[in-house]
Amino acid sequence: MRAVWLENCKLSCVENAADPLPGEGEALIRVLIAGICSTDLELVRGYYPYTGIPGHEFVGEVMSAPDNPAWVGRRVVGEINISCWNCEQCRSGRTRHCENRKTLGIHDWNGVLAEFIVLPISNLHSVPEQVTNEEAVFTEPLAAAFEILEQINVQPEDRVLVIGAGRLGQLVASVLKRTGCELDVIVRHQKQRDILARQNIHAVPASERITRKYDIIVEATGSVDGFKLASEMIRPRGRIILKSTYKGKLEVNFSKIVVDEVTLTGSRCGPFEPALAMLADRGVMTSELIEAIYSLEEGIRAFQHAGEPGVLKVLIKP
Amino acid sequence: MRAVWLENCKLSCVENAADPLPGEGEALIRVLIAGICSTDLELVRGYYPYTGIPGHEFVGEVMSAPDNPAWVGRRVVGEINISCWNCEQCRSGRTRHCENRKTLGIHDWNGVLAEFIVLPISNLHSVPEQVTNEEAVFTEPLAAAFEILEQINVQPEDRVLVIGAGRLGQLVASVLKRTGCELDVIVRHQKQRDILARQNIHAVPASERITRKYDIIVEATGSVDGFKLASEMIRPRGRIILKSTYKGKLEVNFSKIVVDEVTLTGSRCGPFEPALAMLADRGVMTSELIEAIYSLEEGIRAFQHAGEPGVLKVLIKP
Repeated sequence: MRAVWLENCKLSCVENAADPLPGEGEALIRVLIAGICSTDLELVRGYYPYTGIPGHEFVGEVMSAPDNPAWVGRRVVGEINISCWNCEQCRSGRTRHCENRKTLGIHDWNGVLAEFIVLPISNLHSVPEQVTNEEAVFTEPLAAAFEILEQINVQPEDRVLVIGAGRLGQLVASVLKRTGCELDVIVRHQKQRDILARQNIHAVPASERITRKYDIIVEATGSVDGFKLASEMIRPRGRIILKSTYKGKLEVNFSKIVVDEVTLTGSRCGPFEPALAMLADRGVMTSELIEAIYSLEEGIRAFQHAGEPGVLKVLIKP
Repeated sequence: MRAVWLENCKLSCVENAADPLPGEGEALIRVLIAGICSTDLELVRGYYPYTGIPGHEFVGEVMSAPDNPAWVGRRVVGEINISCWNCEQCRSGRTRHCENRKTLGIHDWNGVLAEFIVLPISNLHSVPEQVTNEEAVFTEPLAAAFEILEQINVQPEDRVLVIGAGRLGQLVASVLKRTGCELDVIVRHQKQRDILARQNIHAVPASERITRKYDIIVEATGSVDGFKLASEMIRPRGRIILKSTYKGKLEVNFSKIVVDEVTLTGSRCGPFEPALAMLADRGVMTSELIEAIYSLEEGIRAFQHAGEPGVLKVLIKP
């Protein structure tokens, strides 16, 4: 089959990738649309050594499911962690943190920048009829945004700041907005500001430095500067959510964290159910986040485009 | 009066320090016993530029209190943050995080390694009769240990690790033990191990590396190594409490924090009430934590002693 292939931090478009075969409890899925996210870009930059087909955001159609034929023909999205259901983390209910997990397009499991993929049925969620493919492909990053609400209780009186209004920051802002909190978003690009304005979300220029103000800050840039800004703008006893892919080590002033009793929480994959419900309710604008749609053969160009500053979601239609 | 004086990271014992005078709402207190803690040692090492009398752990007797004569003659301990009661933090109930605060023996307010000090009456707590001076001097660090229980909910089924069994780590372990949690403490010195053993607290050698095990870890060493150990031993979605004085910047692998969705919380001063109640109930062994008692004139030797590896609490009796 056709696919994008990553090896030694180098991407190529191949025509002869092995056709995946569904094992026990698994489904073969035809990829309808896939998305490129910052983790994919970081993989190419060497964040983590991975050889295989990249990509983990997708909507697809189940082509075969030997043990569960009822799934055939369904439009699905899929969770990215393939868990063993047997280790201590799985037995404690933290299956997304499985000790032996494989991760779609990231670790030991071929990803979605391909014609076909295989995933366990237990990873799949049916897509409601009213959700288009172009919307459904946002389920995985939107679920990651909802993870924040699983981790902390955001209240209407909270002053909340999102740093970064890119691909993920936009979805985070949309999810947080629904809590009724007092929301600001630090924005670098006019286009990002315009999308926020249409949702009545208040944009703050990156140059603005309001120190020790916010109760909650979501750092969605993955950069040293973003974290520094968060450290300055969080109030004592405030919470910083790290919602991005961080490459390498960051220097942190722990003295400030201790003296101000700040809490930092890492945030990764989230629950698919509320994400699909929000898409079905038209509670989030996704069409404006789509920057371009490429074919599989244009995969390398698609990655280049997605890596340019201020570019939002780049999709691939196999 | 006699006092220890810190200037340009250099300690001296002086005989002619200015006698403090209580202002409005303040009390003049004769210091009965003072303690040396790691923050004091870090101040001498240049953690923060401070000129004045160091020290913030004490028990004393109120000598005069112009606006509140009822306090005269009472035995007291005192909170270390002198707050303005007027800034946003104070008005939000976070008076220990006052934007304009002065801090006893740390910032802009002369400390307790002296014959006399002055503190606002609102900072003082009466010491119950059954608590000796040698016990009461532990109130401030014990309150800092209780701060952990204000920040997180420790449950009996939680697997909890304290890294470091020094001055503060011992008190943290005693406080955590009372929650009924499954408690381990990483210990370097035999004496520390013996004190824990007498409280039926399980010691773990520093060489033991049990990765991804603990639900909660309290890092009480303030060292890079202690933090690294905590990062390795915390389970996914676990919580690390930073309960120490950190000097300078630490390198942190944020990728691990995000992927494992770990939470880090800085922890500083805590509530005096439960600390005094625990001392009154004889719920914590303090006598075994006392390493030596010096006079004010021996202040420099006392600091040297307190700075030696494995040394627990060094006290000063003016």
